[in-house]
Parts: sequence; structure tokens; C-alpha cells
Amino acid sequence: MIRAVVWNEYVHERENPVVGGIYPEGIHGAIAAGLDADDGIDASTATLDQPENGLPLDRLKETDVLLWWGHKAHPKVDDATVDRVAQRVHEGMGLIVLHSGHFSKVFKRLMGTPCSLRWREAGERERLWAINRSHPILAGLGDRIELPNEEMYGEPFLVPEPLETVLISWFEGGEVFRSGMTWQRGAGRIFYFRPGHETYPTYHNPTVQRLLRNAVHWAYNPAAAWTDVHEAPNVPVDKAPEKIEQKGGSLHKAGEEGYR
Amino acid sequence: MIRAVVWNEYVHERENPVVGGIYPEGIHGAIAAGLDADDGIDASTATLDQPENGLPLDRLKETDVLLWWGHKAHPKVDDATVDRVAQRVHEGMGLIVLHSGHFSKVFKRLMGTPCSLRWREAGERERLWAINRSHPILAGLGDRIELPNEEMYGEPFLVPEPLETVLISWFEGGEVFRSGMTWQRGAGRIFYFRPGHETYPTYHNPTVQRLLRNAVHWAYNPAAAWTDVHEAPNVPVDKAPEKIEQKGGSLHKAGEEGYR
Amino acid sequence: MIRAVVWNEYVHERENPVVGGIYPEGIHGAIAAGLDADDGIDASTATLDQPENGLPLDRLKETDVLLWWGHKAHPKVDDATVDRVAQRVHEGMGLIVLHSGHFSKVFKRLMGTPCSLRWREAGERERLWAINRSHPILAGLGDRIELPNEEMYGEPFLVPEPLETVLISWFEGGEVFRSGMTWQRGAGRIFYFRPGHETYPTYHNPTVQRLLRNAVHWAYNPAAAWTDVHEAPNVPVDKAPEKIEQKGGSLHKAGEEGYR
Amino acid sequence: MIRAVVWNEYVHERENPVVGGIYPEGIHGAIAAGLDADDGIDASTATLDQPENGLPLDRLKETDVLLWWGHKAHPKVDDATVDRVAQRVHEGMGLIVLHSGHFSKVFKRLMGTPCSLRWREAGERERLWAINRSHPILAGLGDRIELPNEEMYGEPFLVPEPLETVLISWFEGGEVFRSGMTWQRGAGRIFYFRPGHETYPTYHNPTVQRLLRNAVHWAYNPAAAWTDVHEAPNVPVDKAPEKIEQKGGSLHKAGEEGYR
Repeated sequence: MIRAVVWNEYVHERENPVVGGIYPEGIHGAIAAGLDADDGIDASTATLDQPENGLPLDRLKETDVLLWWGHKAHPKVDDATVDRVAQRVHEGMGLIVLHSGHFSKVFKRLMGTPCSLRWREAGERERLWAINRSHPILAGLGDRIELPNEEMYGEPFLVPEPLETVLISWFEGGEVFRSGMTWQRGAGRIFYFRPGHETYPTYHNPTVQRLLRNAVHWAYNPAAAWTDVHEAPNVPVDKAPEKIEQKGGSLHKAGEEGYR
Repeated sequence: MIRAVVWNEYVHERENPVVGGIYPEGIHGAIAAGLDADDGIDASTATLDQPENGLPLDRLKETDVLLWWGHKAHPKVDDATVDRVAQRVHEGMGLIVLHSGHFSKVFKRLMGTPCSLRWREAGERERLWAINRSHPILAGLGDRIELPNEEMYGEPFLVPEPLETVLISWFEGGEVFRSGMTWQRGAGRIFYFRPGHETYPTYHNPTVQRLLRNAVHWAYNPAAAWTDVHEAPNVPVDKAPEKIEQKGGSLHKAGEEGYR
Repeated sequence: MIRAVVWNEYVHERENPVVGGIYPEGIHGAIAAGLDADDGIDASTATLDQPENGLPLDRLKETDVLLWWGHKAHPKVDDATVDRVAQRVHEGMGLIVLHSGHFSKVFKRLMGTPCSLRWREAGERERLWAINRSHPILAGLGDRIELPNEEMYGEPFLVPEPLETVLISWFEGGEVFRSGMTWQRGAGRIFYFRPGHETYPTYHNPTVQRLLRNAVHWAYNPAAAWTDVHEAPNVPVDKAPEKIEQKGGSLHKAGEEGYR
Repeated sequence: MIRAVVWNEYVHERENPVVGGIYPEGIHGAIAAGLDADDGIDASTATLDQPENGLPLDRLKETDVLLWWGHKAHPKVDDATVDRVAQRVHEGMGLIVLHSGHFSKVFKRLMGTPCSLRWREAGERERLWAINRSHPILAGLGDRIELPNEEMYGEPFLVPEPLETVLISWFEGGEVFRSGMTWQRGAGRIFYFRPGHETYPTYHNPTVQRLLRNAVHWAYNPAAAWTDVHEAPNVPVDKAPEKIEQKGGSLHKAGEEGYR
């Protein structure tokens, strides 16, 4: 049973009647309901206004895959929350970043790039083309996904070259976008999925729901958490795999910690 | 003329007589002298204790390639300096991170990973093998580099998969390390080079000096600085490349800025 | 149940008493026995001297993951066999290439590079370091694998940059080698694993056997075979996703096949 | 002075009056004229009907960058020509594959994949978006290229994950395509560029000409040819970088060649 947590800032739904009408249970609620249709996934939710942004350390330790939707409230996410999430990704937790989450602190921290793009909110048609239709994230989805109304995101999308380009979008207004990409950071797998503007019912779309279920399975790393992934252990001379003798000058005393 | 700046925390040389003896002009001085042997490079230096860590915005704007050596004083580098350096890399400035700079704030910011590793200071032999001896960074260097005394760094090195693995090290004590790797972040090229422990005269080594000159040429991006690389411009409906009409609900008013 | 086929040229074992003594059931027999210890794998074997090199199309269609060991008899493998294997990898069959299989026709076909390296048969110690110990191929294996006697393979190994570098070897004689790497070709996943010289009992090693079981699971793609992966279908104007009209000159008549 | 050779099968221009009217000097002639506008490039041409397909070994040895346009006559290219070209790419010659060259024997050999795609000849509008506008191949070209009439190529394009995705195309009819990608094979750099259907004047377009000049500079590797890139030298025990002694069984006699 993969433990998935859907995080949402949960702001638009409560402030904007259009969004609230589409997502009465919140965007997180709709996504979690879609995930729960999979017997192998146990989905729960977390929101910005909860203590520690809904993601205290204890909860993150019991999270296998985190999904992240944010937009208006990116700056309100605590830096300590970003630290905890990044640490857990490095340890092996999967991360699925959705739509406007491209500008979240979490995603920027893990990418090391601006994560910027062009955008237009015109309800235009989006067609996502599969680059590798046999990729596990696209299982059962065919060679393309059509969404009748979506926000446009256009290239250049300032992210590092991905491990895999999974989907590329065509937009009615003339732009393109790499709408599905994968990266690895430490032991953790990351998938970015573009669609999901708050004024359209994208997360109620059965195809999108299937894709997100697939992505949760893909992002799940069954290995034990790599909890010391940030440590830089000294390997003293007498513990070297091969027998060697100390030579030359030395700055560190025996057994001393390294600098960081 | 490529404008290279060699940044050094410049601490060990002034605190430790062994290091001061090897690098009387500082590690930065030795590296800059090596770069200046190239007619196409204009090398200068910057150190931690200077105003704005020696890297005010005006100076960074006139820097084509930045080299970074730090170790003991990583935490003392201002976060604002890290912001400025990262911005300039995204705009196109080249960055060469040296040895213990693996744990610098700048490198961790741009990688999005722990950048951790194992280490041992035993003066052991290191042999760096060329993966692609025709790579421009290895021009004129042959198929391997031998260093009689170096600190050991061992895998796992927690960085993202690189664009290219350029060098892999063998250590006398039994470890291996990916000692030369390249990445792209925005318009900027990044090269990490492992050797250069402060208690050995590595930066006086003519082969290492040649490699660093090559790396400066490789990292240099002659394109104009991509100064708006962090911006996410709206492309309004009437400016779309293809003629479209507004459809569906909308959150943003016409001409409004996006959230970030 | 993953259907794995272990292919072996099966020459050394019958010609050389040292090899025959280590692998009385053939290298393929030892590998298949190791795989069969996994309840989720159904392993069988195929050898060069069988009709169609033991890999007729019908059999390949029922193969999920193919393992390949060859050395002395690379040139004797039929080109038609290479075509069939490459086609099935493109359709989604996993491929695990072992040791001297680096110079097999199959591997060279799928890499597009020389696949050359340096070598020495001195029974020296090899230590394989995990780059990402949480990678599924390394499940349960810790941070390194030690083999007391192996042939040395040294860099440069002329293959394309991999998707992931999984293992790097240290050799007693001073060389290094990227001993575990992954690639994708069409819908098929490829893993190269270095150890396995015929004069040492490497495939009887429980750690190596565990790694190969892991690799079979990793390489398995449950998607339906992408049987038309080599086709280049015309999408006529009236079948275009968006309504368009024919413009400009044309070379092809309506419904005509493309050139290839 | 970079020595560029533009190879063309040169069939359509002589068989089809529409094509002949657009390219009276052949497609190769138009491309070479565009390259020659650069003082740093010395462009010449070669065609299928010349002895050894215009690319005898002596000529290839004096070629720094090869551009390849083929379509109808792919099967007529000698396998020996393909061998020579691939060898030279591995040694360090740059290769730029154009448009329908995606199905050339040369490109398929170097990619190891089907290189298939979807297509439509409707003269529709193509807009190529820059993924990294500061990439040297895009110097001076801005953020997009518009072509009023082109053949459509649609994803999936069955090639390995590239080192860099440089351009992605939007098509009027609803498809997308990764129209500019880079790979490395041995010491050689490869760039694929999509536009250039024979019934449209694409190679007379000044923007396309500028891009191809940039690409020639990018693909040029000034390193000496790596002529033994296919060899697998034995490193005998007494030549090992570290002192070792022969252990265990051995198959090869001292000084013997390896199998391949």
C-alpha cells in the first residue's frame, strides 16, 4: 500500500466561487479521490493552513509519495517545510509537482533553476503527446491526451534537462510545453505534470486521474529511507578498503568532523 | 578575452602554516596565475572577507566564468551572495566548482541535492581517468592524470545525473569518484572538478592548470546575458502566436501579473 | 511471472577445462539457476548452436527480459538474430548485457558506439561502488560489492552517456570502470553489468545473483509490445487533430507510403 | 577553417520539377551556399551517385562536420559508406542530420533506435520554440523560428533521450516534434534538425541558414581524430598502473588479442 499525501495550498477554492464550484472538496480532495480508486494507494491530504503546513516530520516519514499543488500562496510556505520535504525526497520519497507548483519553493529548491515559463489563461485546447507510450506513467492512456480547456504554459521552461521527457503539449494559441518530465534527486524520483489550472475541472478528468495513479506507482521507491544521505562520513586510514599508510600534510586531526 | 574570477574563502592559508607555505598567494592566487598563462583569459580574484564577499552585482555582471573554492567557511557566505551567483549562472555565467566547494551553498543551490560524499585525508595517490579524451575540457591532457598526494573523495556523490561524466578517479585506498562532471542550469554551464585539497600543491600542477584553462573556455557562454530568465511573462490572448478567443472561466484579470 | 531468457554462446565451457569446471551447466545454466530462486521469474536458456541461435521470433515474442553473454563467438551470431532482438527491445523487451557482451553485435547495434574498453586478465580484486544504493537494481546489496578475482575492464568505455550510472568499479591494478549503466531504446530498457569473466565463479556469487534478479525486475516493461514501433504512419490532412487545408507543393500522392 | 561537407542523395531535384525549381543547384548546393557565408566554414558537397557515394575514406578524414540530407534513396547508400561515416563520427567528426535523414542508415546506426515518426505533407505552418535561447546553435535567432510551409513530423520520434532538447515544433495541424536535439557518440557530436522538406524553400531561409552555420561550429571537435576508438587494448600485468601479480585461472595467453 503506497502512502500518498496530496498537498494543496487550498486558497483559490475558498476565495473564488468559480474554483470553489469546480472543486467543492478542494483540489486536494479531487486528486485524493482519484488516487483512492487504486487499491494499491492510500491517499490522504494536507494543506497550508495546518500546523507545520500539514507536513510535520512524523507525517513526512510515513509518506511514500507527495503530490504538490500551489499557486497564489507559494511565499507562505515555511522554509522549514521546504527543508523537510527536500530532505525526504533525497531520502527516497517520490514527489509529483502539479501545474503552478512549478514556482513552488519545493520545486525550485530541487531543480536549482528558475522554473519560469510563459502563460496565458484563455481556456484553450491542450493536446499532450506521449513521447514513449510504453512508459509506466502512461500505462493505459494511448498516444495522446486532449483537454478542451486549459491554461497555456509555453517554453522555455527553465528546468534542468530531465531524465525522460514523457509528454509534450500542443496549445491552440501556438505554443508548446514539456508537460511531463522526470528527474532523480538523491534516492527520490520527481515527476512534473503540467495540467491542472484551478478554473477548469482537469482533476476530475478520468484520464488525468489514471495518469496520476500511474505516476504515484512510478515515483514510489520501496527502498528503506536513506536517512544519512546528507552526511559526509570520514573513512579513516585504518578503515580504508585497501591497506594504505598516511602520507603528506594533514589539516584534520584523527576522527575530526569535516567542514560543511 | 574571457573574464574569469577565482573566488576563495581564503581562510586555511592564513590560519595553517602548512597550507600557507604551499599557497603563499592563496589558493585563488595560484589558480588565477595558472589561468593567466592563457592569452584568452583575464583572471582576477575575490575573497570572502571583501565587501559583499567580493562579488557585488556589478562585478558579477562583468564575470564570464566564476571559479569557486571554499571549505571551512561555507556557512559564512551571505545568502544574498548565493542568490546573486545563482542568478548569474542562470543568465549564462559559467561556474567551475572546485574540490571542497561540493558543500558550498552555491553548488548545493544549483544542484538541488545533498552533494555529500565520503572522504579521507591520507595523502594517497589519485588517478583520474578520461571518459572522453576528446572532450574540450581535456584538450592536450591524454587519457589520465596522476596526482601523487590527494585527499580521497568517495562515491556516492549525491549530485543529479550529469550531462557528461568527464573524469573518474581511482584512489589508492580503494574508492572511486566521478571527479569531473558537467551540468547546465538555465543558460549557464557548470563543471565540477574534484582535486585541490589545501594541504597538497595540486593547483601548482601544470596539468591541473591546463585543465582549468580548458574548463574556463568550455564554460564560457558568449550569448548575451539572459537577464529575464526568472520572469514568467503573460502572453495575452491578442498576442498569442495563433488567433484564439478567450474561453471558460478566468482567475486573472487582463494584464495581471502571475503569482510566484 | 517475468519470462527471462538467458542467452549464452556456450563455447568456452566446452573448449576449456577451467571454464567447464567452474560452469558445468554452462554460464547460462548458472545464471538461470540464480534467477529461478525468485518466485516472480521464470528463467530459461538459449544458446548459439540452436536453430536461429535459440531465439526464433516466436520465442522472442514470449520473452520479457533477455540476458546476453557472449565473447569468442560474437561474429557467429546471425545478423537476422540481431535484427530480431533489436526489434523486440524497441517493442519493450528488457535487455541485460553481461561482461564481454559489450562487444556483441546486439549491444553495438543498440548503442551506436564502438563499445570498446581496455582489459587485463589477472584475477585482480574488483570493488563495485553503488552510486545510488536505493536504485531498484541494487535492492538489498548495500553500498559496494567485492569480487576477489575478476578480469579488469578499464575506461574509456565507448558507450553513449547513460540514463543512470548505477555502479563504478575500482580495480587493484589501478583502473576504473562504469560497471552498471542503464539506457532506454524505444520502449525497452537496457542494463549493462560488467562482471562475469568465464575463468572466475562470478555467476555463482549470491550477491551477483541477487543483483541479476533485481535487474530482471527493473528491465521488465509490462506494457503491451509496441509492435509498430518501426512504422512511420502518414496522418492525412483529413485526419489531422486540428482542421487544416492542404497548402503548397506536394511530392507524395494522397495515401502514398513514405520513403525509408 | 572548419571543413564542412554537405551530403545529398540528389534525386528529387532531378526527378521532380517542383523540387528542381526550388533547388536548381540541388538541396546540397543551397545548404553549402548558406554555410559559405561564414568566413570560418569551408563548405563542399558530395552526392550519392559519386564513387563511394562521394565519401571515400580520404575525404572523410579531411571532413570536420558532415551534413546529411536523404529521403527516397536511403536503401541505395552503401553499407560500407555507413561504416566509414560512423567510424569518423566516433573519431570526432561532427554530424548534422537533416529532416528526412531521420530514416537514413547513418542516423539509425548511430542512434540504435527505429528513428520513426508520423508525417503529413500539407504545407502547414511550423513554429520552432527555443528551449534554451542561449544555446550556441541558436545564437542570434531569438526565441522562435516560424516557417510558413513545412511537412509535419509528429511525436513519438523514436530516438534515445538526447543530451539536450534545443527546439520543439508546433504544427498547425495539432502535432508537436522535438525538432532540434543533440547527442554524443564516441568523440563526435550529432545534431538533428527537422525542417527541410524538398517541396518548400526552407534551406533558402536566412534564419535556417544561420542556424546551420551555428550548428557546424557547435559540432566541430578540434581534438585530433581518435583513430583507435574501436580498439580494445590489452593492458598486461607488467604495464598495469599499479603493481599487481597474476592470480587465478586465465583464458588468454600473454600478449594475445581479445575476442570481438
